[in-house]
Amino acid sequence: MSFQSCFPIWDKLSDVQRNRILDGLVCHQIGRGTVIHSGSMDCTGLLLVKSGQLRAYILSDEGREITVYRLLDRDVCLFSASCMLRSIQFDITIEAEKDTSLWVIPAELYRSIMEESAPAANYTNEVMAARFSEVMWLVEQIMWKSMDQRVAGFLLEESAIEGSRQLKLTHDSIARHLGTHREVVTRMLRYLQSEGMVRLSRGAVELLDEKRLSALSSP
Amino acid sequence: MSFQSCFPIWDKLSDVQRNRILDGLVCHQIGRGTVIHSGSMDCTGLLLVKSGQLRAYILSDEGREITVYRLLDRDVCLFSASCMLRSIQFDITIEAEKDTSLWVIPAELYRSIMEESAPAANYTNEVMAARFSEVMWLVEQIMWKSMDQRVAGFLLEESAIEGSRQLKLTHDSIARHLGTHREVVTRMLRYLQSEGMVRLSRGAVELLDEKRLSALSSP
Repeated sequence: MSFQSCFPIWDKLSDVQRNRILDGLVCHQIGRGTVIHSGSMDCTGLLLVKSGQLRAYILSDEGREITVYRLLDRDVCLFSASCMLRSIQFDITIEAEKDTSLWVIPAELYRSIMEESAPAANYTNEVMAARFSEVMWLVEQIMWKSMDQRVAGFLLEESAIEGSRQLKLTHDSIARHLGTHREVVTRMLRYLQSEGMVRLSRGAVELLDEKRLSALSSP
Repeated sequence: MSFQSCFPIWDKLSDVQRNRILDGLVCHQIGRGTVIHSGSMDCTGLLLVKSGQLRAYILSDEGREITVYRLLDRDVCLFSASCMLRSIQFDITIEAEKDTSLWVIPAELYRSIMEESAPAANYTNEVMAARFSEVMWLVEQIMWKSMDQRVAGFLLEESAIEGSRQLKLTHDSIARHLGTHREVVTRMLRYLQSEGMVRLSRGAVELLDEKRLSALSSP
């Protein structure tokens, strides 16, 4: 899988722009658990995931977390290049959830191409609009859904990402994804187990009834 | 105040682009309380507020609301032209909170200019990044702050917008801004009154101690 085939606007760039990108492009291998961007301090550049999985989350002053979105194969991470956009005024942390291989277009290089290329700027727009939609979805989840609905939805999402009904997840990690406390997650999971929708074991959750989980998460 | 002086990228457009915008530009007067955009159905265009005040909010299936951001003089509303961006997949409602005068660049016209003009596309990026920052701020408020902190913060924000310590606000309207129930707001306001931070009267809240309200809202 080449960078050219993964970068959607490759065909719309000039030869000069393409060469500048290829000259500046860096490929990184990131180990699971590594934080690759934190806060608004560093400005690595535009990341394109070749393979693996990244998680973007925000942190409270007290160290609580909530997952804002995930990035999978071929997804682009914009906020690791937040210095490109003056109007971005929030801190987001990006961490590898799995061993990840990614391409980096350095921020200054991407900014200069975006400045002269309408296709690059419009592509950035589409990426940001997609992330915006995910954050608005999150706001709706937090505001209008109860925690049992959110836990059910999260388990289904994880199962779709992993392609498995057997999920290696601790109660604590689920709590960090959803921005709540471990005790709350434990209570919700026990309720789902008592209803026969999941089976719990040490460090794992098995989905038994996706249909009812789905009905619970989106009534 | 002319459109040209309010539209930040006017100087970066070609004569042809400027003429196309001036030919398509519409000026509207909107009465207080009017909903000018709703859901993802209509696609009016890019709105530029000449004077007045708009509120963008989301609605739950049960009719609950939460304010996502406000638009004041010279602010630009992008999501009233959401059809321009394929990746926008959420519904937002925009309502005039005051009598408002605004310019509309029809969506199809703005889209075609954005497609060919890097400055227009980058400007759209900055507008979206600014709104994105406001939504991330909202997520942090909802997730990490208690309701008394959020009510205190909302009152200070209103006071800054109105330039007054005397605010015409019902408990119900505060609840709709914050996405909670009227009873919760009433309890919080009574607490703030008992602490001497506000004085309540029918349909109004007077701020008595901004310093302590501020300390409460951002500890």
